[in-house]
Amino acid sequence: MSLRFGILVFPNVQQLDLTGPYEVMATVKGTEVELIWKDRNPVMSSTRLSLTPTATFDDCPPLDVLCIPGGGGVNVLLEDKAVLDFVCERAGQARYITSVCSGALVLGAAGLLKGKRATTHWYAHDFLEEFGAIPVDARIVEDGKLITAGGVTSGVDFGLALVARLLGQAEAEVVQLSLEYAPAPPFRSGTPAEASPAVLAEAKQRLSGSRRVREEMFARWRRERAAAMPTRIRP
Amino acid sequence: MSLRFGILVFPNVQQLDLTGPYEVMATVKGTEVELIWKDRNPVMSSTRLSLTPTATFDDCPPLDVLCIPGGGGVNVLLEDKAVLDFVCERAGQARYITSVCSGALVLGAAGLLKGKRATTHWYAHDFLEEFGAIPVDARIVEDGKLITAGGVTSGVDFGLALVARLLGQAEAEVVQLSLEYAPAPPFRSGTPAEASPAVLAEAKQRLSGSRRVREEMFARWRRERAAAMPTRIRP
Repeated sequence: MSLRFGILVFPNVQQLDLTGPYEVMATVKGTEVELIWKDRNPVMSSTRLSLTPTATFDDCPPLDVLCIPGGGGVNVLLEDKAVLDFVCERAGQARYITSVCSGALVLGAAGLLKGKRATTHWYAHDFLEEFGAIPVDARIVEDGKLITAGGVTSGVDFGLALVARLLGQAEAEVVQLSLEYAPAPPFRSGTPAEASPAVLAEAKQRLSGSRRVREEMFARWRRERAAAMPTRIRP
Repeated sequence: MSLRFGILVFPNVQQLDLTGPYEVMATVKGTEVELIWKDRNPVMSSTRLSLTPTATFDDCPPLDVLCIPGGGGVNVLLEDKAVLDFVCERAGQARYITSVCSGALVLGAAGLLKGKRATTHWYAHDFLEEFGAIPVDARIVEDGKLITAGGVTSGVDFGLALVARLLGQAEAEVVQLSLEYAPAPPFRSGTPAEASPAVLAEAKQRLSGSRRVREEMFARWRRERAAAMPTRIRP
C-alpha cells in the first residue's frame, strides 16, 4: 500500500521534531513524505539546518497523514490564517492528524484539540487547556484520528506507533530494527520528573524566551475574547 | 566555551544519522555545527531529504569534533580519495573523531580503526574486522579520541555522551531535558537479539542491496591486496 505523509516545515522549526518521524515514515517501503510550506524556498530550522519544502499549500497532493512539528517557530504560526486554514482543511481529509512537540499548539490554534486528549513538550503542556484540550502526561496520546507526541525525540516513538496503526506492528518492528532503535540514554534526565532541580531550572531558563512570547500571546487572546463578550449586567 | 562540530554530508546519507547528533550538538549554547561536503550544492539523503552543506573540504574551519554519519551513500566514499584524505587530515587535528552507523566504515577505509575498539550498525558490524578494528557490541564505543556509535538512532545517545565529555554531564543533561529524551519505543525490536526471526529476515532483505555492494567491495580489496603481494616460493 502506498502512503503519503505530509510534514509542515517552517522557519525556526525544531528540526529533530521533523527529521525523527520523517525517517521512520520514509523507511516504510513505498511511502512518500512531503515537506509542506507556503513556497519551496529553503527555510532555516531553529538550530540553523536548512530544510527545503517539496510541496506548497496550493499544490500539495492528498495526504494520509499530516504532521505538525514544533519549535520556536510555532509562535508566529498560531496567528497565521493561511497556515491554520491549511491545517484545518487537511485535517478533515487525512486519516491521521498529528503533532510532535509544540506542534500541538498549532493544532490547538486551528481548533482541533477541543475536547480531545493531547500532549506536547513538557514546557508547553499547560498551554493545552487554553485550547480546550484534555492534557495527558504521556509520550504519545491517541484520540481517534488525532495523535499528539511529547517533546522533540518523542517523534521517533510516535512514528513507530503511527506505522503500526497504518500497516501493522510487524512493519513498525522492521523499521525499528532498520533504524536500530534500542535507545540507551547515557543519563537519566529526559523529563522534569527525572532531571535534577538545577538541570530543570537551567533548561527552563534557556527556553524562557519562546515561553514568554507564548504567555503574552495567550494573555492577549484572553483580553480580546473578554472584550468581545457582552458586558455582564451587575446586580 | 565555543565549540565547532563538523558533520560530513554526502549523497544518500541516512539523514537521521546526521540530524540526531546535529540537534544534540546544536542545542548546546554557543556551538556551531558545519555540514561539510565537496561543494555547497544541496545533496539528497537516502530517504530524499535535501540537505545543504555549509562548508567545503577546502574552506572548513578548524573542528573540535568530526562526525561521519552512515547510510547507503557510504559505499562510494570508501574509495573516494578526496573524502578519505579530508577525514584523515581532520582526524589528526580534532579533539574527537566520531561516527554514527555505517559511517564507521569510512573511518575504517581512512585507516583510523586499526587496533581500535569500535561499533557500527548491526548489519555492518562484521565489516569492522576488515579494517583491523576490534568490534565491540555496544551502542557507543569510546577508544581514546575515537567514538563510534551503532545504527542510526544511536546518534542521539552518542551526541549526549559527547557533550558530557566536552562540557560535563550537567550540560548533557540540560540538552537531554530540552529534547525530552526519555525514549519509550512502543515495540521491542531495535536489535537483532530483540527482534523476531521474521522481522530480522525482512530487515536484512531490505538492506541487502547495500550489503551486497559492500561485500563485493571487500572481496575485491582482498584480491587486490593478494595480487600485490610477492608470490610465495612453494617448497
